[in-house]
Amino acid sequence: MKIGIVGTGHMGSGLGKLWAAKGHEVFWGSRDPEKAKRLARSVPANADGGTVAQAFAFGDVVLLATPWSAATYALKSAGPLAEKIIIDCTNPLKPDTIFELEIGHTTSAAEEIAKSVPRARVVKAFNTIFAEVIHSSPLFGSQKANVFYCGDEKQAKDTVARLIRDIGFEPVDAGPLKNARYLEPLAELVIQLGRGSVGMGPDFAINVVRR
Amino acid sequence: MKIGIVGTGHMGSGLGKLWAAKGHEVFWGSRDPEKAKRLARSVPANADGGTVAQAFAFGDVVLLATPWSAATYALKSAGPLAEKIIIDCTNPLKPDTIFELEIGHTTSAAEEIAKSVPRARVVKAFNTIFAEVIHSSPLFGSQKANVFYCGDEKQAKDTVARLIRDIGFEPVDAGPLKNARYLEPLAELVIQLGRGSVGMGPDFAINVVRR
Repeated sequence: MKIGIVGTGHMGSGLGKLWAAKGHEVFWGSRDPEKAKRLARSVPANADGGTVAQAFAFGDVVLLATPWSAATYALKSAGPLAEKIIIDCTNPLKPDTIFELEIGHTTSAAEEIAKSVPRARVVKAFNTIFAEVIHSSPLFGSQKANVFYCGDEKQAKDTVARLIRDIGFEPVDAGPLKNARYLEPLAELVIQLGRGSVGMGPDFAINVVRR
Repeated sequence: MKIGIVGTGHMGSGLGKLWAAKGHEVFWGSRDPEKAKRLARSVPANADGGTVAQAFAFGDVVLLATPWSAATYALKSAGPLAEKIIIDCTNPLKPDTIFELEIGHTTSAAEEIAKSVPRARVVKAFNTIFAEVIHSSPLFGSQKANVFYCGDEKQAKDTVARLIRDIGFEPVDAGPLKNARYLEPLAELVIQLGRGSVGMGPDFAINVVRR
């Protein structure tokens, strides 16, 4: 396949090298065409480099691997894109921090609940797993289903982690309560996978897999 | 531990039964106290049932396992909650559908990109995995790191799935492009786990685990 890659950073260079090694033709495009050419020369075969416009023109598939803030600018450099497949791997992070989304929530159910009961200690947990898994078993082969939890007070979080572990699940600390802004959409992803058009059914878990 | 459980539905009943079986004292509260009592009687030991207010009063830890639309109402029935730990497992789903969040995104980077290049076919992919994993290896023991992808055109999605599989990753179809609203917050969760206060580092993947 002919794959244009816009961006020579960590994502674009890594994916391009892997695809080139598998025999696909890769063309990296950058605002600094010399950098793209150098990257291409570092690859044994199937790679070339140049401008962003050239990368768009080259690929039947184009990987958009710029920072989000540069994505719109990059797309303006593209010629006609009819029928081309654009793989978007950007995330709309705020320009000055990777810790917030520019397009995203500004609150969550958990934060609203915490606001309504200011003296209690709220921990978000168990929202990313189907009840069916709780009613059947936390074990998937040798792996325990993960339960993400987040909150602002260590002692409360430790207690909840113990209650998760007690019944055979693996607690995964997901940081402060504000991160419910990411756990609640994860639940919606789980619903889409299990109950939506993807049709996976409820018997799965979302796990953090480490080496 | 003394655990109050507000809600006798699928989540509340399942978690309560497991905690009771592990020797915790469980008290279910419901707007229908008789239903809560019947549920408690179905459990061999360590369980009782009654009103929502009683469940809040009973627990040092209280699991809030109502639908989101009933959560605020339930909290109003609570007495003083000082120091109590509230486990929030609700998701702010719209009342008439489980397929949208009430508190959540109304767009995504992917949808904005698709709008700006209407003739191209945009597929969201590779946004939920650290570049470090791409530069090292997709294999975590015997498991392949999952790459979620979503888009609106089957042929474009199939092509991207092939490109994911080609380089050793496992593609996971996450439905239509609109679901980038959930994949982009998942990326932010990944960032929080890897780079944020949780401090897990970048060498992990988020996988769908099935039996």
